[in-house]
Amino acid sequence: MSPVYLDNNASTQVDAEVVQAMLPFFLDQFGNASSMHDIGTAAGAPIKTARRQLQALIGAKFDHEITFTSGGTESVNTAILSGLDTVPGRTEIVTSAVEHPAVLTPCAHLEKTHGVKVHRIPVDHHGRLDLNAYRTALTHRVAIVSIMWANNETGTIFPVERLAEMAKQAGALFHADAVQAVGKLPMDLKSTAIDMLSLSGHKLHGPKGVGALYIKRGVPFHALIRGGHQERGRRAGTENTPGIVGLGKAAELALECMDEENKRIKSLRDRLEKGLLERIPRTFVTGDLLARLSNTTNVAFDRIAGEAMQSLLNRHGIACSSGSACTSGSSVPSHVLRAMNIRHGTALGAVRFSFSRHNREEDVDRVLELIPGIVEKLRDAVPGSRGHAK
Amino acid sequence: MSPVYLDNNASTQVDAEVVQAMLPFFLDQFGNASSMHDIGTAAGAPIKTARRQLQALIGAKFDHEITFTSGGTESVNTAILSGLDTVPGRTEIVTSAVEHPAVLTPCAHLEKTHGVKVHRIPVDHHGRLDLNAYRTALTHRVAIVSIMWANNETGTIFPVERLAEMAKQAGALFHADAVQAVGKLPMDLKSTAIDMLSLSGHKLHGPKGVGALYIKRGVPFHALIRGGHQERGRRAGTENTPGIVGLGKAAELALECMDEENKRIKSLRDRLEKGLLERIPRTFVTGDLLARLSNTTNVAFDRIAGEAMQSLLNRHGIACSSGSACTSGSSVPSHVLRAMNIRHGTALGAVRFSFSRHNREEDVDRVLELIPGIVEKLRDAVPGSRGHAK
Ligand SMILES: Cc1ncc(COP(=O)(O)O)c(C=O)c1O
Ligand SMILES: Cc1ncc(COP(=O)(O)O)c(C=O)c1O
Repeated sequence: MSPVYLDNNASTQVDAEVVQAMLPFFLDQFGNASSMHDIGTAAGAPIKTARRQLQALIGAKFDHEITFTSGGTESVNTAILSGLDTVPGRTEIVTSAVEHPAVLTPCAHLEKTHGVKVHRIPVDHHGRLDLNAYRTALTHRVAIVSIMWANNETGTIFPVERLAEMAKQAGALFHADAVQAVGKLPMDLKSTAIDMLSLSGHKLHGPKGVGALYIKRGVPFHALIRGGHQERGRRAGTENTPGIVGLGKAAELALECMDEENKRIKSLRDRLEKGLLERIPRTFVTGDLLARLSNTTNVAFDRIAGEAMQSLLNRHGIACSSGSACTSGSSVPSHVLRAMNIRHGTALGAVRFSFSRHNREEDVDRVLELIPGIVEKLRDAVPGSRGHAK
Repeated sequence: MSPVYLDNNASTQVDAEVVQAMLPFFLDQFGNASSMHDIGTAAGAPIKTARRQLQALIGAKFDHEITFTSGGTESVNTAILSGLDTVPGRTEIVTSAVEHPAVLTPCAHLEKTHGVKVHRIPVDHHGRLDLNAYRTALTHRVAIVSIMWANNETGTIFPVERLAEMAKQAGALFHADAVQAVGKLPMDLKSTAIDMLSLSGHKLHGPKGVGALYIKRGVPFHALIRGGHQERGRRAGTENTPGIVGLGKAAELALECMDEENKRIKSLRDRLEKGLLERIPRTFVTGDLLARLSNTTNVAFDRIAGEAMQSLLNRHGIACSSGSACTSGSSVPSHVLRAMNIRHGTALGAVRFSFSRHNREEDVDRVLELIPGIVEKLRDAVPGSRGHAK
């Protein structure tokens, strides 16, 4: 039986069309895009096309607002450091408690070594941002706000357009980590107050090792990686032409099928969710059910460690993710679930299923078939848990 | 007629075997290497293999001394910033006047905005480093030395092993920009005092958008890009599995054929050089002819602008590079030629021909056939230059 891949928030399969678009740039148009001869300049137009494809996907006003990077993490780091560097006299950062490590780790580092004050806005039990706390943190000392558009674990969508407006009122720059949102949500950045936005190719059926940073025209910017004049001085290093072309193609495909596929994906996700809740007692969905990516469900099963569930599903050929600290091997709930106060005892952890346009009905069927047996097995193993079941 | 590509120091054609090695990681083993399921963990072993392939190529003692990055420029920036950050009480950098912008631009930035003192060691007319000036600059105030192993424009090889020993005596870290040297020169880093070394995939028939930073075990290190735990915390961001696997394969191929191919490439290069000097009066080769990459020749033609020559060769299907500032459109000689005091009047610029194992005898024949006519044409265009010819 072919494996069922339901971990698309971790990474996606590269679209076959994307791979086809990339291939010529390995073997034929392999020149350095900065070279002056035909084999080099041949890369110029395709890179421009890719920039326009991304521009269209996120609704940027100008194609040169897109700077290609090596991925989401580089984009996020660049945006935060640039924000701190370019807003004179302001030394504070506002972010949320449920950001990705790509945001939280550099923030913690700046706090520890550079005396930067970091405000981590809390969320409620449903993962919704505390708007009062956000408003209070937004003083004239804040250089940059970095808030995610959609949460990678629960799919919860933050109202970034509104948050960006509020940041603007306070004179702070606003960066959106949209790594999980781009390609999944319609965007029209030109009509928002968002100053910078990060995205990553491999989350939208594009290649790994390439991403982009949107920098609204006129927003002050300092590069993180310096050297040659590539990307108008905003990101040095020989252009990753195949990667950039692949990301552009992935953006085009995402835009083309977004409306239709979102509906189809949502119905798959909803059927899985409904099926799980019906079949397994003491189970609930975490996150903001009213504002959520249509591809993501994060399900907490009482008295079952996420890793154990994930690992048994894996043995049956189903790839998903547990809501626990990925590499620690411990069963401490993730920082996201802890911030939502999804407590031990209620659920040790949770399992995330994340869909993409490569998923089919049969994928849902397989999970629904397998999971009752797996839950039984795992709950049997926990002393005393049987008594609570019904 | 198929084009002749003699610009391999700018970028190389990806080897067909490398592309083959990469393909499965786009379409089948596309998981996130940090994921706990089979589709994710499937990436672990190939990444380890790639690390070992690079370890073998550069003679590192441990495979974990290799950290994968997005390319040469990121590696170099990371090394320099880490060096400054981790050596307490030392605030100076030593580098050379002929480094790549990946070194010089971040150094200039640190000088301007962080009050870091940068020593740019001069070179002589043959591009050889001024060892006395180097020795003098190496005081107890120097945190890090960054010197290139081989020059991208002239191929001149610096004695980095000796330079690293001297830096060690002075208590400074030593970083080698080996972007042009890796895959072209045999290396055994474990028997050197080199602390860090940068390399880039696309210079050795590997993919663009991937590179590595060697960090000798025990050398203090601070990451530039922070986030998840990838690369043992040294470089955050979802691993670029296809790129890493491709770089590993490219390293393996380079090591396999280095000895043999270096000989063959050198004979091609020497035949081109000899042919040019014989056919074209008032022509000379720049750089250190006694310590030079065997694939590179940088030729100055009196009273001919490098760009004009490069551009006419391009029209005849020959890709090479001019020794002038790449994107400016002016004919000011490059900073490398200026540092060597290759003056205006003698030569406005120079043309670099750089070979790889994909070149053949016919490539040399084509250039030698074409160039006398091109020189004639260009010298005719310069008033008064005809009188000097013979
Ligand atoms: C919300 C979010 N931000 C940032 C990142 C980092 O992206 P990448 O791993 O591609 O660098 C990820 C994914 O890993 C993510 O889910
Ligand atoms: C000597 C040297 N250092 C650094 C670099 C930067 O490498 P990359 O463009 O792959 O980032 C190059 C090539 O462009 C180079 O020739």
